[in-house]
Amino acid sequence: MKIAITELRQKIEKTLNKNLNNDQARVVADYLLWAEMSGIKTQGIVKMIGSEPIQDIQPSGEIKVERDTKLSQLINAGANAALLVSNIATDTAISKAKEHGFSIVGVHNTFSSNGALSYYTEQIAKQDLIGIAASRSPGSTAPFDSIDPLFGTNPISFSFPTDNQPIVFDMATSAMTFYGLILANAKGESIPENMAIDHEGNPTTSPGIAMDGALLPFDRSYKSSGLGMVVEILTGPLTSAAYCDTALTGEWGSTFMAIDPNLLVDIAQFKSQCSDLVQKIKSSRKKHGVSEIRLPGEKSHNLYLECVKSGQVEVDEVILKQLGYV
Amino acid sequence: MKIAITELRQKIEKTLNKNLNNDQARVVADYLLWAEMSGIKTQGIVKMIGSEPIQDIQPSGEIKVERDTKLSQLINAGANAALLVSNIATDTAISKAKEHGFSIVGVHNTFSSNGALSYYTEQIAKQDLIGIAASRSPGSTAPFDSIDPLFGTNPISFSFPTDNQPIVFDMATSAMTFYGLILANAKGESIPENMAIDHEGNPTTSPGIAMDGALLPFDRSYKSSGLGMVVEILTGPLTSAAYCDTALTGEWGSTFMAIDPNLLVDIAQFKSQCSDLVQKIKSSRKKHGVSEIRLPGEKSHNLYLECVKSGQVEVDEVILKQLGYV
Repeated sequence: MKIAITELRQKIEKTLNKNLNNDQARVVADYLLWAEMSGIKTQGIVKMIGSEPIQDIQPSGEIKVERDTKLSQLINAGANAALLVSNIATDTAISKAKEHGFSIVGVHNTFSSNGALSYYTEQIAKQDLIGIAASRSPGSTAPFDSIDPLFGTNPISFSFPTDNQPIVFDMATSAMTFYGLILANAKGESIPENMAIDHEGNPTTSPGIAMDGALLPFDRSYKSSGLGMVVEILTGPLTSAAYCDTALTGEWGSTFMAIDPNLLVDIAQFKSQCSDLVQKIKSSRKKHGVSEIRLPGEKSHNLYLECVKSGQVEVDEVILKQLGYV
Repeated sequence: MKIAITELRQKIEKTLNKNLNNDQARVVADYLLWAEMSGIKTQGIVKMIGSEPIQDIQPSGEIKVERDTKLSQLINAGANAALLVSNIATDTAISKAKEHGFSIVGVHNTFSSNGALSYYTEQIAKQDLIGIAASRSPGSTAPFDSIDPLFGTNPISFSFPTDNQPIVFDMATSAMTFYGLILANAKGESIPENMAIDHEGNPTTSPGIAMDGALLPFDRSYKSSGLGMVVEILTGPLTSAAYCDTALTGEWGSTFMAIDPNLLVDIAQFKSQCSDLVQKIKSSRKKHGVSEIRLPGEKSHNLYLECVKSGQVEVDEVILKQLGYV
């Protein structure tokens, strides 16, 4: 059902106030509204229901800066919500890169997932910086030739400023998201073929059996497996988080980087060429049956703009009812 | 046939002396021998034969530094051989990152390809730094939903130091390399299905028709297409090279980054955890029919070590004859 964005924001912030102060609640609400408005429903306010709703997170410690240099910061999240701490990390990455040209911020010991990484890299690109973000989660994906779930679904995102909306690319290095498994399992549906294997390495289309087995890397070969490994290293060993964590007990980790294009070329030229590149792709000849070539993130951004214009967002009524919002 | 490495080196350096001084010839010979010894034959001394042998490159200008900061350098290669200039760029990236924690070096206007990017990122990781390298080439690969060859085959490589041999990952973002097309075409062979399309977007297994059409991104979907776009931006607009260059006349471009893990965690811990990650992957349960799980780059490195041990390298006799080496 449609709900007014201002009304939804008030309700979300009030719910989040359970364990977060007003500023913190606003930061998390910003993300949740962005995800809903962008049509990224699996990473939106669905995070407020289920067995681990984010408003119930009781952090075991403070957010602590464990290392700080001109170009970098390592943050121990103290089991605070990833949605909160990753925003802080993004702001830090932006301010350091604005001043020094580059930054890398590592976060470990967050509670659960950051949501969609494109949210953070978009913020970085809006500040005229190139953004890179990556995250590891507990083991769910088997490396190429292995049948053990050593890697997380390990998303990575890149963003680039243009003269208009930034180019924002975001993908899991697994064939599907772990949330996709949870959702299919809850609905009693099967998953497509060639996405996952059971514990012994046999193909399966059962999401429950896949959760006990492993997802496959997205191209089912060494390339996406290698990319999954790259993310595992950048967000595991590089942030003091866990890695190759099949016991599912280790720390989640994320890394945010920002690069000032001015280090190599003039920012105005860079942005204008990135805009031109978008136009060249969009105006290229289309594959038979394709009506429009969309850049990564374009569809989500259009949905977001529609919501801004109408002041309303479409939200699953079941979720709104569970939260007592309607 | 087998040839002694010292003998092959002398001959290669002598051939390269045609247009390169002794130091330059040694740098390029180092690469060519490494590629041959690593079994990367399509990027090895085959580059000394054919229509554009590297010893015949007559640069149109000097190698010029166009921008230089503590963290960065932009190099105009003056149409010198990419194999030469990318080595210089790698050395610069290493020394800047050693001093300041991070570096990014862009190169444009090189003559043709760098060869295998893993050569450069391996050098970076051997200096206890994380390496990232990417390259663009003239348009050969169609973005997802497009049938125009807007992107190059756009390889990207990542490397990580360990307590032993670095982890080195290297891949093209296209379904196959452009050299693979050239080779199949020269041999009159067809290419596998689902690798390429003709000029009108129809599937083709003819390498000649594919060269006039386009390669597909490696997973034939938006993910590898997005990665191809990321490489196109990092090595096109970000280095003042060409981009989306279907006319095939624009400049080649490359970007090299080095990141000191000490920015976030202690290097000794990082290296030891990367070694442990390698062991965890290698000792995980194998897919049915797989005798050994290999890390990216592992097979090449083993071939390289065998050559070092024996003092000899296996080289295609046809190439050696064409070069007058036997």
